[in-house]
Amino acid sequence: MLKGSTMKTDIDVVVCEVGLRDGLQSIAQFFPTAEKIAWIQAEAAAGVPAIEVTSFVPATLIPQFADAQEVVMAARAVAGLRVDALVPNLKGAERAMALGVNSLDFVMSVSRTHNLKNVRREREESIEEFKRIVSMVRQLPPQQRPRLTPGLGTALGCSYEGAIAVDEVVKCAVALAEAGADEIMICDTVGYADPVLVKKVFTAVRSAVGSLPLGAHFHDTRGLGLANVTAALDCGVRRFDASLAGLGGCQFAPGATGNIVMDDLCFLLDAMGLRTGVDLDKLVSVRPMIARNLPDVPLYGGLARSGLPRNYVPAAQRAALTNLIF
Amino acid sequence: MLKGSTMKTDIDVVVCEVGLRDGLQSIAQFFPTAEKIAWIQAEAAAGVPAIEVTSFVPATLIPQFADAQEVVMAARAVAGLRVDALVPNLKGAERAMALGVNSLDFVMSVSRTHNLKNVRREREESIEEFKRIVSMVRQLPPQQRPRLTPGLGTALGCSYEGAIAVDEVVKCAVALAEAGADEIMICDTVGYADPVLVKKVFTAVRSAVGSLPLGAHFHDTRGLGLANVTAALDCGVRRFDASLAGLGGCQFAPGATGNIVMDDLCFLLDAMGLRTGVDLDKLVSVRPMIARNLPDVPLYGGLARSGLPRNYVPAAQRAALTNLIF
Repeated sequence: MLKGSTMKTDIDVVVCEVGLRDGLQSIAQFFPTAEKIAWIQAEAAAGVPAIEVTSFVPATLIPQFADAQEVVMAARAVAGLRVDALVPNLKGAERAMALGVNSLDFVMSVSRTHNLKNVRREREESIEEFKRIVSMVRQLPPQQRPRLTPGLGTALGCSYEGAIAVDEVVKCAVALAEAGADEIMICDTVGYADPVLVKKVFTAVRSAVGSLPLGAHFHDTRGLGLANVTAALDCGVRRFDASLAGLGGCQFAPGATGNIVMDDLCFLLDAMGLRTGVDLDKLVSVRPMIARNLPDVPLYGGLARSGLPRNYVPAAQRAALTNLIF
Repeated sequence: MLKGSTMKTDIDVVVCEVGLRDGLQSIAQFFPTAEKIAWIQAEAAAGVPAIEVTSFVPATLIPQFADAQEVVMAARAVAGLRVDALVPNLKGAERAMALGVNSLDFVMSVSRTHNLKNVRREREESIEEFKRIVSMVRQLPPQQRPRLTPGLGTALGCSYEGAIAVDEVVKCAVALAEAGADEIMICDTVGYADPVLVKKVFTAVRSAVGSLPLGAHFHDTRGLGLANVTAALDCGVRRFDASLAGLGGCQFAPGATGNIVMDDLCFLLDAMGLRTGVDLDKLVSVRPMIARNLPDVPLYGGLARSGLPRNYVPAAQRAALTNLIF
């Protein structure tokens, strides 16, 4: 497994499905392992290039992820798929690495209160833990190392603390960058962001961490998710997390609801002429896999409700036409 | 009634509630007149500065608007409210004017097919009809004239014709501007728009019609409504239509669903620091008036589901603070 070897080069924006982790973590009902694997395979077949397939938290804490090993093994067998996993600590990172996970999504919150509730650590302790993970990863030869892609939760607001100072986000991002992150996800865990704040935060972090890639993880809690995506695009962000049908939430963040809807995100990007590698019709056809396993969970999304515009031409085909013309 | 006299000066963006027209026109069940009036009064009390309260179509075509006269009279009694009404033709405009409507929302579609289906006219005939309305309005002394605010439907795509050429939108907008429009609404009737297209269309129309105010009327059919709003804001648009809880659609546009959600639009704008004059909590509290009359109609909206962010400071109060500090 080469670091980054699963990245596709004919896409403009990398979308990462996080429904299997962020979506399922707040749902008590166990999603059968075979069904998780079928979901991963189907979404990868629709062209989604990266999937956060599980979380390496203790199964005693979140039984939903007791099958992490089996899920990762199956996901790794999917050709071309970048397999991400959430790792809350060194122990989790160790388990994920042993299984050949491509991206280690370490998580900490900019909000001190949320970090204490979510991972029971001071933020400084989280940074120290991340450094230990970096050290462990660096014991491998460079070409065998997983990508280190930590996420900064509550970076755009916190349901415990309210507004979060931009300086605090920058401070945490710089600490993660200096510690050895390959990419940093800026996360609006509870859906407090607006396009102006997004531009403020991403611009500030960008100027502090140089060319380090930044990604965005938005929730659609108050309906502003895709507006925030366009603001992040304006800041040069080219990686976005989302969950199919908007599944998601956070059990330690009161009022939080789902991630932005993957299908609508892919339609937004594609309509804007940005290639994602995703076949929109195939993607929408994966939704019943969620519905049949979670009949009582609300699913969201406009594309699935209304279908593609008449005579819609996907971005990849438009690009080809452009190439022909110019 | 002075033209423009109901416009508030302490707001940055004018939002216009269109649920009573665009929302109700596709709903067969009659919404009781007293309940329409209560809805108008409550939303005006929440600070919404403009409401399209009805449509002057023949009651035989849309029985929902058989009470247009009573609704307009009641709306005109609401202090400070700008009362808009849709007028499909000269006859409708005449009725609206006689009742003292503040803004005449004449409607035509850029898509020839949609215009034929919706108002049974060629586009050229629609322009001629608008000219007749202008002539009629200009028989009044300037200070007594209603505003002429025509809307260009299917300007960003059509469920019959697919993509709509930007040139066609410009041509129609120029014709309306030359005929005497005070403002032009650019309407994504069926939710085909994306932020890139929005910028293309609004930029092209803007450069063709000079300083004439432009407004945007978006539907959230495929989830991109608020992303399109931010694109229009970038183009200098400062008037937006929306409907409370996303009520809406068009019976002659297959697959169309509701307008963008008024409550989420106001939250988006306010969060971005743009004052709308709307009290968000009061606005959300109006939603049950719709729900109790239309228990089977789906209502949308993130703000209503999740509430305001913790310690949220409204834009108007932030502006005041800014004024104090600088």
